[in-house]
Amino acid sequence: MTLKIYLSGEIHTDWRNQIIKGAADLDVVFESPVTHHDASDDCGVAIMGPEDKKFWHDNKGANLNAIRTRHGIENADIVVVRFGEKYKQWNAAFDAGYAAALGKSLIVMHGPEHQHPLKEVDAAARAVVEEPKQVVDILRYVLFGKLP
Amino acid sequence: MTLKIYLSGEIHTDWRNQIIKGAADLDVVFESPVTHHDASDDCGVAIMGPEDKKFWHDNKGANLNAIRTRHGIENADIVVVRFGEKYKQWNAAFDAGYAAALGKSLIVMHGPEHQHPLKEVDAAARAVVEEPKQVVDILRYVLFGKLP
Amino acid sequence: MTLKIYLSGEIHTDWRNQIIKGAADLDVVFESPVTHHDASDDCGVAIMGPEDKKFWHDNKGANLNAIRTRHGIENADIVVVRFGEKYKQWNAAFDAGYAAALGKSLIVMHGPEHQHPLKEVDAAARAVVEEPKQVVDILRYVLFGKLP
Amino acid sequence: MTLKIYLSGEIHTDWRNQIIKGAADLDVVFESPVTHHDASDDCGVAIMGPEDKKFWHDNKGANLNAIRTRHGIENADIVVVRFGEKYKQWNAAFDAGYAAALGKSLIVMHGPEHQHPLKEVDAAARAVVEEPKQVVDILRYVLFGKLP
Amino acid sequence: MTLKIYLSGEIHTDWRNQIIKGAADLDVVFESPVTHHDASDDCGVAIMGPEDKKFWHDNKGANLNAIRTRHGIENADIVVVRFGEKYKQWNAAFDAGYAAALGKSLIVMHGPEHQHPLKEVDAAARAVVEEPKQVVDILRYVLFGKLP
Amino acid sequence: MTLKIYLSGEIHTDWRNQIIKGAADLDVVFESPVTHHDASDDCGVAIMGPEDKKFWHDNKGANLNAIRTRHGIENADIVVVRFGEKYKQWNAAFDAGYAAALGKSLIVMHGPEHQHPLKEVDAAARAVVEEPKQVVDILRYVLFGKLP
Amino acid sequence: MTLKIYLSGEIHTDWRNQIIKGAADLDVVFESPVTHHDASDDCGVAIMGPEDKKFWHDNKGANLNAIRTRHGIENADIVVVRFGEKYKQWNAAFDAGYAAALGKSLIVMHGPEHQHPLKEVDAAARAVVEEPKQVVDILRYVLFGKLP
Amino acid sequence: MTLKIYLSGEIHTDWRNQIIKGAADLDVVFESPVTHHDASDDCGVAIMGPEDKKFWHDNKGANLNAIRTRHGIENADIVVVRFGEKYKQWNAAFDAGYAAALGKSLIVMHGPEHQHPLKEVDAAARAVVEEPKQVVDILRYVLFGKLP
Repeated sequence: MTLKIYLSGEIHTDWRNQIIKGAADLDVVFESPVTHHDASDDCGVAIMGPEDKKFWHDNKGANLNAIRTRHGIENADIVVVRFGEKYKQWNAAFDAGYAAALGKSLIVMHGPEHQHPLKEVDAAARAVVEEPKQVVDILRYVLFGKLP
Repeated sequence: MTLKIYLSGEIHTDWRNQIIKGAADLDVVFESPVTHHDASDDCGVAIMGPEDKKFWHDNKGANLNAIRTRHGIENADIVVVRFGEKYKQWNAAFDAGYAAALGKSLIVMHGPEHQHPLKEVDAAARAVVEEPKQVVDILRYVLFGKLP
Repeated sequence: MTLKIYLSGEIHTDWRNQIIKGAADLDVVFESPVTHHDASDDCGVAIMGPEDKKFWHDNKGANLNAIRTRHGIENADIVVVRFGEKYKQWNAAFDAGYAAALGKSLIVMHGPEHQHPLKEVDAAARAVVEEPKQVVDILRYVLFGKLP
Repeated sequence: MTLKIYLSGEIHTDWRNQIIKGAADLDVVFESPVTHHDASDDCGVAIMGPEDKKFWHDNKGANLNAIRTRHGIENADIVVVRFGEKYKQWNAAFDAGYAAALGKSLIVMHGPEHQHPLKEVDAAARAVVEEPKQVVDILRYVLFGKLP
Repeated sequence: MTLKIYLSGEIHTDWRNQIIKGAADLDVVFESPVTHHDASDDCGVAIMGPEDKKFWHDNKGANLNAIRTRHGIENADIVVVRFGEKYKQWNAAFDAGYAAALGKSLIVMHGPEHQHPLKEVDAAARAVVEEPKQVVDILRYVLFGKLP
Repeated sequence: MTLKIYLSGEIHTDWRNQIIKGAADLDVVFESPVTHHDASDDCGVAIMGPEDKKFWHDNKGANLNAIRTRHGIENADIVVVRFGEKYKQWNAAFDAGYAAALGKSLIVMHGPEHQHPLKEVDAAARAVVEEPKQVVDILRYVLFGKLP
Repeated sequence: MTLKIYLSGEIHTDWRNQIIKGAADLDVVFESPVTHHDASDDCGVAIMGPEDKKFWHDNKGANLNAIRTRHGIENADIVVVRFGEKYKQWNAAFDAGYAAALGKSLIVMHGPEHQHPLKEVDAAARAVVEEPKQVVDILRYVLFGKLP
Repeated sequence: MTLKIYLSGEIHTDWRNQIIKGAADLDVVFESPVTHHDASDDCGVAIMGPEDKKFWHDNKGANLNAIRTRHGIENADIVVVRFGEKYKQWNAAFDAGYAAALGKSLIVMHGPEHQHPLKEVDAAARAVVEEPKQVVDILRYVLFGKLP
């Protein structure tokens, strides 16, 4: 059994690396969005030409990024979505909704300060955790039945 | 042609009523989430018994609310999602993602100050508007081909 | 909004009637399995001829009953499954699994003595209750946002 | 042709090993739930923290286990569900219903004493057997057309 | 509960009328293929112009008839397929396969002389009967739980 | 049996009216795109504000029109696509492809001069005709089995 | 590009071998039903015990065979169905209907004497041929664009 | 992450080769239609025998080609559709509609002179480009997050 995991959400801390390193001995394959903030914002106009309006600048980029994120979610067995401390992070919640509608197993990661506003997202999840290590523990348990 | 519309998102202004009144002469049917904030928060424990932990208090309520919101989205032809000025509104973005995954026609409503953080949601939409009247104009156009 | 409800499971108490009466003022439509125990057991051979072996006697009947139960589950918005105090009730758990795989909103009803063996079924549910009145309360809340 | 098999149900006898050994020369891949009883019960709280209420203790664990069981069922060509002599085994019947709704080929294994209460589950199956060897015989026949 | 029934197969006896009359007091809606043999054979060329080759003459007609038969099968809750005594009746078996793949409840009607060659079709059915009255009995049982 | 028909394609002749009048006595329901050329081109900017670039002007309009056309195709039993004598008409071919992927019964209408370039579209159709009257003849045949 | 092919239908001539040999240099993978007639008839009772009635003898076998045939059809890119000169061959037509409902590319093989009774099956096919060599020619064309 | 790409549309320039060469260092797999014009036109009659009417000549060929094109589209992550300067190219627009209905990520390539008539197709796309290099840039960005 190989598990395919998509790591969605916050891009300003190294939580993805912590999970990937922690799961180095497991039969798992990870996909992620582009996490380089500027590239992610500007990819559309860099490839398809500039726009005067910020709306279309962003629209072109968001559509390109969607090629990658939809691939990641649609092919995943498990979608992990992390909400960080800053910013609106609506794309993270959007990904969670998208994954839920496809029946993916959803793991949500966030601190206790976000518990109430994330209650609808958490209610769609199979697990709600705070730390990357807990995601690794879950993957190890799902694959081997081993508790931490 | 009857259009079924689900009105998701912000619950602190009367945008739903403005759309419903504006569309009073149209062959449309609306569904909405429960917009009474306290009822929405407490429905789970009110019906199924109290919880010590806020997490489970919210979990019970969010799951009950999901019975209604999933019905609304899954049966809709068009899902309108409004992002207001306050709060995290992750459930609105979650609904947008859920609707997008089901291939629903999505209309997103928000002010210009939220354009950049909503770029992924907007990129999944057939229309991005600022005012309830524009939603009514769209419904009238879709039904009759009449411009405002 | 009309809600379509399928009432699955235990057939030896009058819980279905309690829900139907309690919801008499609501815009709901109910379907149920055949709850006459002998008819349910013997329908196959009564219509299609007798069998020497109990296995085929039961197989013919179970397949006929499945025409009705699958119709009920597949057309439902909400599937309510009640586990009573007696018998194996594997058909109730089977219906719950069937409903879960189709993404139906699932409400499970059982007494506290069955909590542990039903944990997998409960985990797939949007609500776990003990009494018919709670199901009526949920339906009323989902339709009107009114708490009991 | 590689057949993917999910072995669901009873965890107190070694029927899974008998099938896996008997099929050692066949092009088959097996998945199973976590069969260590205590780990399966406690995985949720071990990874995500303790709960005072047994219901939530079990809910956390059942949701984690569902990540594995849903993966197993959804990826399987054939789902084998065994009902043993003890316990309620509602999760086994739930898995059978889940598999049936997805159109999986279902093989049910149980002793003659459970024939009547399992009639709805058996009626959804392509084969009803009593012994692990019969499952191996079926796999061999499906792969090679060879009778035992 | 309204049941939608598609009556497929043999067109040379009045079995459809017998079922429709027998079910006159039931909440059922029937669809059938065009049962006028010449119209069914010639509809394509009558509307879209003649063909020299019998293959294309038949191809045009069969495609028109498929508009009606696919509508009937895809919208049905129950598909009844009758095999008569004469002709190849491959279209009946094709309809049965089509219905089975869509997960429709299938009732097969034929005499005992065709039991062996129809074994694969029968194995996909929820009921195998010989007489129109038995179909009516099944519909009445499914709707009301009443035995004949 | 009510047939739902979507009339896609060419908007410069009155073929839709000819079909609708010809079918006035039939149990059919028609949907169509907005056929007012200017409204169809300008709806996006009229409702959501002007654009400097023609690409975005058109993008906004095409997305609004898609709300109506996708509704029409997705709810149809039969999709009729007419190719006229002028213009590129790529949206007509796009609709035909969209309908084919959803398994809709497709009727294509065009003159003999377009036979070769439309061969892939025609090969996905159940009927290829030249005149509106032939579409009416098909609808009448599908509903009643009557030949013209 | 690897093509997965399921070879359904007549089992009394060596048409399958002719196709497999003819395609030996192509990137194709074949599946077939069990073509040993006695094994196919008796597999159910040989593994699961004898039956007095021929109907249940056949039912047990047909269900086991369905595990293999459904796997073959559901995983195929192309389903080839051959109708021979003898027997009713309703299972072949059933497989064709099953494949058509799943949107598989269907190739039908039969002699000219069966053209009229197979018109509905042929109308669902992408190709109708008479000889195994033509199937190989099609596979070679689909893979390489080379004509014979 | 391996990306599967289908290259649909215009066959008279070497744009496919430019993309394939430009992406030689990327983990991508390409499929294309048969691009040899005469083979594509005549494949049906070459394998299945001649036709007097051009319509059936083309019908036989288009159906064979559809085996390959549907495989390509249905298995793709990304469908690229190029519209060239000449011909009607309705099959390209048909493929775009087919891909859009399946939820594939669509990239449309065409010159500015075709912007207006392609507005509906462009509105269904994640990216609209003019040059093969831009497609390669998109693939490289989607795989690695690297801008050109």
